[in-house]
Amino acid sequence: MTRILVINPNRSTACSAGISTAIEPFRFAAGPALDVVTLEDGPPAIYTWRDWHAAVAPLCQRIERETADAFIIACASDPGLEAARSVTTRPVFGIFRSAVAAAVARAERFGVIAIVEASKARHRAALRAIGLEGRLAGEVALNITMESLLEPLTAAQALIAAGQAVADMGAETIILGCTGMAHHRAALQAAIGLPVIEPVQAAVGLALVAASPHWP
Amino acid sequence: MTRILVINPNRSTACSAGISTAIEPFRFAAGPALDVVTLEDGPPAIYTWRDWHAAVAPLCQRIERETADAFIIACASDPGLEAARSVTTRPVFGIFRSAVAAAVARAERFGVIAIVEASKARHRAALRAIGLEGRLAGEVALNITMESLLEPLTAAQALIAAGQAVADMGAETIILGCTGMAHHRAALQAAIGLPVIEPVQAAVGLALVAASPHWP
Amino acid sequence: MTRILVINPNRSTACSAGISTAIEPFRFAAGPALDVVTLEDGPPAIYTWRDWHAAVAPLCQRIERETADAFIIACASDPGLEAARSVTTRPVFGIFRSAVAAAVARAERFGVIAIVEASKARHRAALRAIGLEGRLAGEVALNITMESLLEPLTAAQALIAAGQAVADMGAETIILGCTGMAHHRAALQAAIGLPVIEPVQAAVGLALVAASPHWP
Amino acid sequence: MTRILVINPNRSTACSAGISTAIEPFRFAAGPALDVVTLEDGPPAIYTWRDWHAAVAPLCQRIERETADAFIIACASDPGLEAARSVTTRPVFGIFRSAVAAAVARAERFGVIAIVEASKARHRAALRAIGLEGRLAGEVALNITMESLLEPLTAAQALIAAGQAVADMGAETIILGCTGMAHHRAALQAAIGLPVIEPVQAAVGLALVAASPHWP
Amino acid sequence: MTRILVINPNRSTACSAGISTAIEPFRFAAGPALDVVTLEDGPPAIYTWRDWHAAVAPLCQRIERETADAFIIACASDPGLEAARSVTTRPVFGIFRSAVAAAVARAERFGVIAIVEASKARHRAALRAIGLEGRLAGEVALNITMESLLEPLTAAQALIAAGQAVADMGAETIILGCTGMAHHRAALQAAIGLPVIEPVQAAVGLALVAASPHWP
Amino acid sequence: MTRILVINPNRSTACSAGISTAIEPFRFAAGPALDVVTLEDGPPAIYTWRDWHAAVAPLCQRIERETADAFIIACASDPGLEAARSVTTRPVFGIFRSAVAAAVARAERFGVIAIVEASKARHRAALRAIGLEGRLAGEVALNITMESLLEPLTAAQALIAAGQAVADMGAETIILGCTGMAHHRAALQAAIGLPVIEPVQAAVGLALVAASPHWP
Repeated sequence: MTRILVINPNRSTACSAGISTAIEPFRFAAGPALDVVTLEDGPPAIYTWRDWHAAVAPLCQRIERETADAFIIACASDPGLEAARSVTTRPVFGIFRSAVAAAVARAERFGVIAIVEASKARHRAALRAIGLEGRLAGEVALNITMESLLEPLTAAQALIAAGQAVADMGAETIILGCTGMAHHRAALQAAIGLPVIEPVQAAVGLALVAASPHWP
Repeated sequence: MTRILVINPNRSTACSAGISTAIEPFRFAAGPALDVVTLEDGPPAIYTWRDWHAAVAPLCQRIERETADAFIIACASDPGLEAARSVTTRPVFGIFRSAVAAAVARAERFGVIAIVEASKARHRAALRAIGLEGRLAGEVALNITMESLLEPLTAAQALIAAGQAVADMGAETIILGCTGMAHHRAALQAAIGLPVIEPVQAAVGLALVAASPHWP
Repeated sequence: MTRILVINPNRSTACSAGISTAIEPFRFAAGPALDVVTLEDGPPAIYTWRDWHAAVAPLCQRIERETADAFIIACASDPGLEAARSVTTRPVFGIFRSAVAAAVARAERFGVIAIVEASKARHRAALRAIGLEGRLAGEVALNITMESLLEPLTAAQALIAAGQAVADMGAETIILGCTGMAHHRAALQAAIGLPVIEPVQAAVGLALVAASPHWP
Repeated sequence: MTRILVINPNRSTACSAGISTAIEPFRFAAGPALDVVTLEDGPPAIYTWRDWHAAVAPLCQRIERETADAFIIACASDPGLEAARSVTTRPVFGIFRSAVAAAVARAERFGVIAIVEASKARHRAALRAIGLEGRLAGEVALNITMESLLEPLTAAQALIAAGQAVADMGAETIILGCTGMAHHRAALQAAIGLPVIEPVQAAVGLALVAASPHWP
Repeated sequence: MTRILVINPNRSTACSAGISTAIEPFRFAAGPALDVVTLEDGPPAIYTWRDWHAAVAPLCQRIERETADAFIIACASDPGLEAARSVTTRPVFGIFRSAVAAAVARAERFGVIAIVEASKARHRAALRAIGLEGRLAGEVALNITMESLLEPLTAAQALIAAGQAVADMGAETIILGCTGMAHHRAALQAAIGLPVIEPVQAAVGLALVAASPHWP
Repeated sequence: MTRILVINPNRSTACSAGISTAIEPFRFAAGPALDVVTLEDGPPAIYTWRDWHAAVAPLCQRIERETADAFIIACASDPGLEAARSVTTRPVFGIFRSAVAAAVARAERFGVIAIVEASKARHRAALRAIGLEGRLAGEVALNITMESLLEPLTAAQALIAAGQAVADMGAETIILGCTGMAHHRAALQAAIGLPVIEPVQAAVGLALVAASPHWP
């Protein structure tokens, strides 16, 4: 049976639970298993470049220990993507690049909502790496903590304000720049009237196609 | 129930049958319906720019008549993508742009195998439109007909030679540049040792995620 | 005798008459004939992507029936340029690309005045295709009909306001984004103080040079 | 009466005579006067960057002394274009940028035939300035003198070999990279089967349109 | 002993004196000689494109007469860089390109403070030539004379306002766009809190490394 | 007294010794101290992406413990540059970006000699991050170990062959892609006849200028 392993590279189980909920719609009967694991020896959250690097060694070790048909690194700053790819022959997806790929397949320009100001530089770096910096209409940071983001209602208003801001900058689709924003997707999409892309969902869509060696 | 409608914009039912087979692995029990329809009033095949334009009016009419949660235009020259998007509020995916998106989410540079020389200009145009011309390692045309491509074994050797050629140009993943190549995917991947992306499959992966208005 | 055929791809004879007036200064004694024809089976006007595609089949048929040394497609969204080039060995010019070429030969950055919002996406697509998106200082849409544009005085004020807006965005030259704006060129140029490029005139300048097989 | 002044920025009257012959087809009865003048105090030819700079002071002085509706700087390295533009309010065209503009209005990629190796860097600089470096398929230098180029037959074979070389690199149109090549245009076009753009002719086409303040 | 020759391409000895002061910190005991010379037959200042060209002939002659291990052209519009490189086998640095190189080695985006509006076009041209136009966050011109800039205190306020303006545009480092601004560097850096790059100093840093043929 | 701290992020003291020798020419009497330290808890060498990440935590800790006016990360894959910048207010230079900056200040296109194939992807990533991928003429890998590189004579021939290869690809200057190549610089430069840039030296040149808060 095909297995797609989603690795939350921070050690927050609340965050992993949110990720698992976000991809629930893709757990089809007889479809690939979509397992979410938490990197217990990863950083508490990835706010800084040091956190970003600190996730990589445990991430690679975990990938080496696991058996899966595809791996997803479930943090919107794509930590350790090249390193992870070097320790497995199976496909590895970074969720930010996946979201950007989904966005440009869908519309001309996208906006990004970041959790903190510092995320912007990592997103810009990923956009340059993938060659799509020119498609970014704009990015707005909420500047709140992961915790406040995970609460059911808090942050919804801040997200909608940020979504409207990037729409005004010309975005035709909006990328949620942190996995903790997943449960706000439908409300944001309804409020702004633009497609809202949740990065783990985007990566699952790509991984479903890439995972199986048995497909025609 | 969620329905993804895949429209083959040429009138070849053999081609539609091949498309339907290609996406069979994504027809999950209780998953979205993946329906493939043939554009009876479309051109016999899309070899030329005139064919490309000729598909658009019937394509738009068909989309207006159908009810679906997402549409896929199943020709690797993405005919009428903007026009189709203007006649529905549901997501519309072009399979070439979808394949390119899947490719850059997977690796740095991709190659394309085209059915005829003239396809290259349409692919280049699509790459420029999406902003990813710089990621194309190279493209090689088979210069054979759709019919010879659809036969089970013929063309396999030509495809493998073309795949090796784009690999030698630096491609790290290979895009099949025509829907008629789908049944050669596994053999080509095995022969070259690089991921091979079948564009309709790539579009289905993106559409699965984009289709449902009910997802969280 | 050299003949340059200007094809208005919509079926408005009023529009064709305006085009013919615009290029009157280039009808030199013993110079090439500059003939303007109307595509009777073209769309009434080209406001949408469907209109844009609908013009192509009759356009190609007309080019196949005519004898000319060069062809000009006289709509500022360059419909069917590649298709037209595939049915003749003679040069074919799209007027938008011609205007952009004239603009970058003249100054660093240009602005565009569009007739409707939807034209912008077609202009952006053409700019990307030609590789000059980065030279666009800005584009402003009038959002009025072709008819109101063709009246002698109406729209002049809207054009001047739009021209000033793109000048403020850094444009050093201004492209009229619809053939129906031609008769406002001199007034706009006088009002703004920047060169104003009328696309059919620009294409005629290029076609004069490209047309003759007899030149040294 | 409208006057377009073509300034040969080197002091070779043989070169000026060739330029005048090249644009003879555009001297229409009752059309604009196309006058060619020689910069007597310019450099003997423009082979080096020092020659390139040395042409500028006399060029600007000449423009200040002359009355014309448009100016053309007739050297394919576009010397002093910005300086010339700063001393007149009338349009000033550099012939290389004009040729490139004509090329991209005509086809996707162009090749250039240079007179000497050192011209390539100036052409690349101009292409970067205009933003079209990415459209250059390739450039080949003849590495011969201006004099040998001006003889009726000599150099034809070298030109054809160079033209074939850039065609093989993917050029769909060919730019003659020196005014002394003008009289070879028709033969080269016939031999290679691609449009060949003579830069002074290209500039005349653009200047005809830009020159008149009286046009509608 | 290693000698780096800094050539002020305008004839202002006050300007040369300011340059010499700016690089005083790099005159190490037993380090390379850093000599500053004035181009007596250069233009009084480089405000226009004509001035820019006028500096080149005397600049090349001076380089041919001098013996040095590296040359620096000390004007922030990099006049005659290619010409200068063609008359010596020793390294030649333009100070604007040097400052831009130092800026991108230090941070992602830089701003520029120009002395006059007209300098901006020359800076943009240099950025395009070097391929780094995309890293310019913004440029602001003071629109004052060289003389008022050279006075000890005048202009400090204007510089700080301009520095703040480019910081607000996203600059993470600031380039002084004229050699006459050198003595304001420390005050500007203190006021804005961003690294301020003085172009002659930047070029000296690069020249120190490039100058010696004897280094390991 | 000004102090520039050069941190070798691998734990090889032989490598650090080579670095120290390479920058000896810049240790001027009364000039800044140029200290080289070894990261004892860094990886043995940086061959892989995992090594690259593994260097970052100890690197940041070291920077936090040290007092210096500027820091240089002396590995040609620029590990942890953004992280290092986040833990100090003093300038931090990555040697690869420094070498590229020095190269584009010196000439149009550069080549790179890599130690192993895998370095190329890290160099490409750095070039994209800095925006200068387009200036890379080519890169060639030696595919030998750090140890064999550090021996006095071994590897010289391989380096010269690689240097000639990138010269043939159009490089006008050559960057040594590993600190262990420093002692081959003069021989390579002599053999190929192009400027050869040693990255630690390049960074020292930039750091000398950036280090002092006291300079005018």
